[in-house]
Amino acid sequence: MDNLNPCVKSMEYVLSGPLVTRAAAIEKELEQGAKKPFKEVINAVTGDRQAMGQPPITFTRQVLALVSYPELIKYSNFPDDVKERATFLLTGCSGGSTGSYSEASGVEIVRRRVAEFIEERDGFSSNWQDIILCAGASTGIKAVLKLLDCETSGLKTGVMVPIPHYPLFPAVIAEFNNMQQMNYYLDESNGWAISIKELKRALNDTKGTCKPRALVVVNPGNPTGQVLTKNTIREIINFAYEEGLFLIADEVHQQNIYDNNSEFHSFKKVLMEMGLPYSKMELASFMSSSKGYMGECGMRGGYAEVINLQSGVKAMYLKSISANLCSTVLGQIAMDCVVKPPEPGGSSYKLFVREKNSILKMLTENAKIAVNAFNSIEGMSCNAVQGAVYAFPQIYLPSNAIETAKQKQMHPDEYYASQLLENAGISIVPGSGFGQKDGTYHFRTTILLPSAKLKAMLQILRKFHEDFLKKQQ
Amino acid sequence: MDNLNPCVKSMEYVLSGPLVTRAAAIEKELEQGAKKPFKEVINAVTGDRQAMGQPPITFTRQVLALVSYPELIKYSNFPDDVKERATFLLTGCSGGSTGSYSEASGVEIVRRRVAEFIEERDGFSSNWQDIILCAGASTGIKAVLKLLDCETSGLKTGVMVPIPHYPLFPAVIAEFNNMQQMNYYLDESNGWAISIKELKRALNDTKGTCKPRALVVVNPGNPTGQVLTKNTIREIINFAYEEGLFLIADEVHQQNIYDNNSEFHSFKKVLMEMGLPYSKMELASFMSSSKGYMGECGMRGGYAEVINLQSGVKAMYLKSISANLCSTVLGQIAMDCVVKPPEPGGSSYKLFVREKNSILKMLTENAKIAVNAFNSIEGMSCNAVQGAVYAFPQIYLPSNAIETAKQKQMHPDEYYASQLLENAGISIVPGSGFGQKDGTYHFRTTILLPSAKLKAMLQILRKFHEDFLKKQQ
Repeated sequence: MDNLNPCVKSMEYVLSGPLVTRAAAIEKELEQGAKKPFKEVINAVTGDRQAMGQPPITFTRQVLALVSYPELIKYSNFPDDVKERATFLLTGCSGGSTGSYSEASGVEIVRRRVAEFIEERDGFSSNWQDIILCAGASTGIKAVLKLLDCETSGLKTGVMVPIPHYPLFPAVIAEFNNMQQMNYYLDESNGWAISIKELKRALNDTKGTCKPRALVVVNPGNPTGQVLTKNTIREIINFAYEEGLFLIADEVHQQNIYDNNSEFHSFKKVLMEMGLPYSKMELASFMSSSKGYMGECGMRGGYAEVINLQSGVKAMYLKSISANLCSTVLGQIAMDCVVKPPEPGGSSYKLFVREKNSILKMLTENAKIAVNAFNSIEGMSCNAVQGAVYAFPQIYLPSNAIETAKQKQMHPDEYYASQLLENAGISIVPGSGFGQKDGTYHFRTTILLPSAKLKAMLQILRKFHEDFLKKQQ
Repeated sequence: MDNLNPCVKSMEYVLSGPLVTRAAAIEKELEQGAKKPFKEVINAVTGDRQAMGQPPITFTRQVLALVSYPELIKYSNFPDDVKERATFLLTGCSGGSTGSYSEASGVEIVRRRVAEFIEERDGFSSNWQDIILCAGASTGIKAVLKLLDCETSGLKTGVMVPIPHYPLFPAVIAEFNNMQQMNYYLDESNGWAISIKELKRALNDTKGTCKPRALVVVNPGNPTGQVLTKNTIREIINFAYEEGLFLIADEVHQQNIYDNNSEFHSFKKVLMEMGLPYSKMELASFMSSSKGYMGECGMRGGYAEVINLQSGVKAMYLKSISANLCSTVLGQIAMDCVVKPPEPGGSSYKLFVREKNSILKMLTENAKIAVNAFNSIEGMSCNAVQGAVYAFPQIYLPSNAIETAKQKQMHPDEYYASQLLENAGISIVPGSGFGQKDGTYHFRTTILLPSAKLKAMLQILRKFHEDFLKKQQ
């Protein structure tokens, strides 16, 4: 243990922490007939739509079946556009097979299609050679941050990360030897907005302790669910330009927007709209097949669009990912279905639209259901979930609950979450795992549960919370 | 560029080097009608069976199709054992879908099956909780080495690596800040054998420059094709025990044995046979869906069996892989088909055996064809290819060829390889990319080409080599 990588030791990752492990254990206990105040564990931890029992998009799965077993293209009656898609994708695979390696950066025709998707989305050109297909956004983010892991005149690389944040970022940063996390706080009182004043505050407070090199923005927000306005994005880009920061935009939830007054604007688009000198800034944007209405988490599809790198740096980036050979080809094909869904007139189109709309309709309802419920519970408040797939309510905890937690050497909201799990069978993630202002307490819940189940969970939670507060009095 | 991760800068990976890039460029030139002394580029670089146009194992692909699109289980006439396998595997996926995340360590029922495979192979028990499913062996190897990336009383971690070696190892080691490669040479004059004398030599020569912590062994050898005898493995284990080294066994080619007098023995098995204290040594063994007769490279299936870790270290290991969420679930399912192929009596059995045998028969022939050809060419010699999927002949290069290379600032065998590519359209990997004794020159060629194509390539190569020698006189 003494000879273990210290970065691995210090790294923390709440989504696989003790509470998640405990929830799994309780499920097994229930299977084995243990008596509990509840019949099942409701898992509200992950942003994993299909784990919640929701069906995948038929088109994607039919394409995956055909590229896995091409005999089906000849001898089955799958829709024409599915057969065409599968046939076309196989022409891009070496030896016409998904069983051969692709280039480290991915299958060229898929990379080209991602570029087309971005062009259509933003109205600005995208170079397919700036597209790197990766196994989910996570590996892509890691590969880009790795480039920045270096000492500059004795100082570690500083990476600005939002608080609260998606826990992947601190986990990855912690694993690098020469990287330091610089926290900037989202403004809960203002719908988790990002303020330039706060970005400057974060920068100044760490002056001299590291060399600020990159700014991470998660839009739509995870766990916070806010969607950035174009104006805010402009201000952020301007700030990053002035400070010479590499922009790292986690935009994996770009297809999950629920609020009628909110719209997704990619950093790439706004950067281009702003023109020179901004349009020449280094930017990495990440997308995944795991989110949106697809929710193909297990397929591990994703892409990074990395623009304006010096050619030498670009070459190093490609070299550094090449030792991993390539990301899963079937995951790349799942990504192809994300960026190029069935088209009007195609035989899969109607079904696709029906499936897509029913999912997004349900999530839009769930977002409202969850937020309204939390705001109607005494001692809870929750900002609107404008996008992404989580709600992040603040919970009021009485002082003696906080005291009890401290005695148990737990974060107060971790203690709350463990009580919720043990007494009500609801598994959520304590806010302390995402970071939060001192003295405030939160938890993250997914809104991906089927609406009926979500409502049931919220009622159980309301009951638990009221009892919890009573007990503490 | 100055602020780029220095480890990334220094890292080298021959399999995506300039020659590979050049080969791809030449292919495009030919497509565009360029006139060359050859009509096609013969790619003999990768160990990618399906890229060479060989079909996959039908059973694997049928299972993948069904778990991708489960409707096929109900409404199609796939073989019963395929339907049963797909149905069973889906019970192990959250929400019964391959689109949901698995645990970071993989789907439990697949991990259990890997353990059964190992027990059957070795005759010793295997704990499914020691099995980590990973996206090909590469990510698994990286994750284990990462644990050892630390400074011990001012010294970097030393990792013993064979020369010649699979280039992944130096690439990975170079990316870690506190790791140093310690080279030990395989004995070409003795069929690329590993001698304990040489291991001790390597250890002594680096005394004081690093803290030796791990010993990497690749068996069957890549690029060298030797298969270790049980006696050699015993000696290696004994050496590792005396020196307190973590054993890292790359055994991805364990199902590729061609020589009648050779047999694959896993390090795990020999360790257990040797009993205490050896059976308590830390060992990581790696397997992949990319090799063997399956050759499912693009699926990115693989596993690591990691035994005898302290529970604390084990926990840190699991934590460190958890931030990547999980490896591709379809890749895990490909791995399931590797460790649990169709069984006698099952409706897929006969076809499977036919497919498997024809592949292994072809590879066995190819191994002989290649070695005989190289040994019959003036100025070339090649050890027997007992296993794996490559031949690694030594080539004699006249002094003026070496001189020309130096003027071009190329390794002599890199110059040879580039000449072979430009004049004969054959793409191979120069030995300098794998490491070799100073003053010796080699190249690696795959033996995965269809036999006819392999023979054609060998004739072109013979002709080129003779002309090359003439020119240099």
